[in-house]
Amino acid sequence: MKPLGRLVIVGVGLIGGSFGLALRQAGAVERIVGVGRRKETLERARRLAIIDEAAPTLECVREADMVMLAMPVGQTREVLAQLAPHLGPATVVTDAGSTKHDVVAAAREVLGSALERFVPGHPVAGTEHSGPDAAFAGLFRGRKVIITPLAETSPQALSKVRAAWEACGAQVQELPPDMHDQVLALVSHLPHLLAFALVDQVARHEQRERLFSYAAGGFRDFTRIASSHPEMWRDICLANRAAVLAELSRYQGHLTELRRALEAADGASLEAVFSRAREARNRWLEERDKADGDNGSE
Amino acid sequence: MKPLGRLVIVGVGLIGGSFGLALRQAGAVERIVGVGRRKETLERARRLAIIDEAAPTLECVREADMVMLAMPVGQTREVLAQLAPHLGPATVVTDAGSTKHDVVAAAREVLGSALERFVPGHPVAGTEHSGPDAAFAGLFRGRKVIITPLAETSPQALSKVRAAWEACGAQVQELPPDMHDQVLALVSHLPHLLAFALVDQVARHEQRERLFSYAAGGFRDFTRIASSHPEMWRDICLANRAAVLAELSRYQGHLTELRRALEAADGASLEAVFSRAREARNRWLEERDKADGDNGSE
Repeated sequence: MKPLGRLVIVGVGLIGGSFGLALRQAGAVERIVGVGRRKETLERARRLAIIDEAAPTLECVREADMVMLAMPVGQTREVLAQLAPHLGPATVVTDAGSTKHDVVAAAREVLGSALERFVPGHPVAGTEHSGPDAAFAGLFRGRKVIITPLAETSPQALSKVRAAWEACGAQVQELPPDMHDQVLALVSHLPHLLAFALVDQVARHEQRERLFSYAAGGFRDFTRIASSHPEMWRDICLANRAAVLAELSRYQGHLTELRRALEAADGASLEAVFSRAREARNRWLEERDKADGDNGSE
Repeated sequence: MKPLGRLVIVGVGLIGGSFGLALRQAGAVERIVGVGRRKETLERARRLAIIDEAAPTLECVREADMVMLAMPVGQTREVLAQLAPHLGPATVVTDAGSTKHDVVAAAREVLGSALERFVPGHPVAGTEHSGPDAAFAGLFRGRKVIITPLAETSPQALSKVRAAWEACGAQVQELPPDMHDQVLALVSHLPHLLAFALVDQVARHEQRERLFSYAAGGFRDFTRIASSHPEMWRDICLANRAAVLAELSRYQGHLTELRRALEAADGASLEAVFSRAREARNRWLEERDKADGDNGSE
C-alpha cells in the first residue's frame, strides 16, 4: 500500500497502540498523532514511539488520511460527533470496536455526508492486558479483522482500511453488522461475562484465600479474560445487550438442564454433553491449526 | 526416600502415568506394574517405559509396596473391593481422585483393617489431555498435592505417600476430605462444567461453523478444560454432587443478577463486578508468582 501520510489514533491502548506499531513496522505510515482522555497515557505512548505527537483535541483530524477509533465503544457516538465538523474531505474514519450495530447507528446519526468514508471494523485479537505498554506490533498477525461495510461505504475508503489491516498482517473478512454482533455475543462477549462472574464468586466467598490458594491452571486459563479492561467490557455488554442477553438466557437454560442431570445423578446425560463439547472443541482446534497455525489470543 | 520396591498403578493415563515416570526419574521406584481395563493402553504404557509389566488382575497388589489408584473416581469402590483381599500386610494404598468424600466412604466400607494403610490424595495438576501418551515426568513439579488423611491413617503410610509425591517434585498439603471437596467444587469442578456447557452451546447452534470460525484466543483458553476426559468429569461431578450443586446454584444466582443489570442497562453494576473480578484475579496471580513461580496447569 501507499503509506498513509497522517494517522490519528483515538485511544492509544492495547488495540490502538498495536495498530500504530504494526503500521509503522510495515512502513505503512509516515506520522501518527494520538488523542485520548489521559495526558499521561499519551505521554507514555510517545515515549514508547507508538505516536509521534499527542494532540489536545479532535481538531487534529483535519489533516489526517485516516482516523482509527480505539477507545471503549461506549464513547463512539460522542467522539464521532466531536470530530465530524473537522474532518477533511478525504479523511477515512474506521474503528476497532468489539460491537458493530451501535457503532454503525452512531455513525449514521452524526457523520452526515462523511458516512461514506466511515468503515466499521473489529480486529478479533487482543490480550487481557490494556494500555500502551501492552501494545505490540505482532498483535494482529494472522488474526481475523471483521469489516462490516454499509451500503453507503465508498469502495476507496473500504480498500484503504483493508490495506491498512493487511499491512498489519491481518486477514480481513466482511460480515453484516448484526451478524457480527450475534457471532461475537456467543464466542466472545458471553465467555467474558461468565469468567468475570466466576472470579467474582470466588472473590466474594468467605474462604477466598483458601479457594485461591488451590486454584490451578484450569482456573487460570478459564479466567484469563476476567483480567480484561472492566470499562471496555461494560461498554461491549451494553452495546450488544440484546444479543448477549439472548445467549445468556440460552446458557442459563443449559445450566438448568445440567443441574437437573446432576440432581438426578444422571451420569449418561452429563457424559453426553461433555463428550459432545470435547469432540466439537477438538475438531475446531484441528481445523484451526490446518487453516492458519496458531491464531493467537483475543 | 528409600526407593519403593514395587509400585502398582491402576489406570495408567495422564495422572497415573506421570506419577510412574516422575518416580522413575527420581530413582524412587524399582519396578512398576500396570493394571487397567484396556489391554492396548497397558501395552502402550509399557512401550513408553511407564510400566515394566502389565498384570491381568488386581491380585498383583500382593507384593506391592504401594498401590496408586488413578482411574476415574467412579470406579474406586469396585477397585478397592477387588484388591482388598489380596493386599499384603505392609502395602500402602493411595489414590489421585479429584474428589475425596466419596473415596473415603468407599475405603471405609471395603478396606477393613487395611484402612489404616489407605492415604487419600489428590494432585492439583493435570492437562486437558488424557491417556499414557499425555503423561510426563514433570507434571507434578511445583504443584500442590492435597492429602486428606483419616483418623485411622497410620503415620508410616502417610509419610510414605508424602515422600513419593515429594520425590515427584510436588508440594504436599493436608485438608479434611469435605473441605477439599468444597474448595475444588468452586475452583475446578464448576469451571469444567461451565466450559463444557459453553462449547456445547456453540456445537448445538445452527450457525456452528461460522461461530467457531470467529472464535479466538479468549474462547480457546476459556474452553481449554472442555477438552478434558468426559468419563472422568462425569464421575467427578457425580461424586462431588452436593458441593458442585451448591456452587452451581450460587453461580446461577450471580448470572441472574448480571442479567438483570444488563436488562436495566445498569453499567455501574456491571463495571463493579468486572472490576472486583479483575482486581481479585490479578492479586491472585501476583501472590502465586511470588509464592512459587509458574504453578502450571490442571
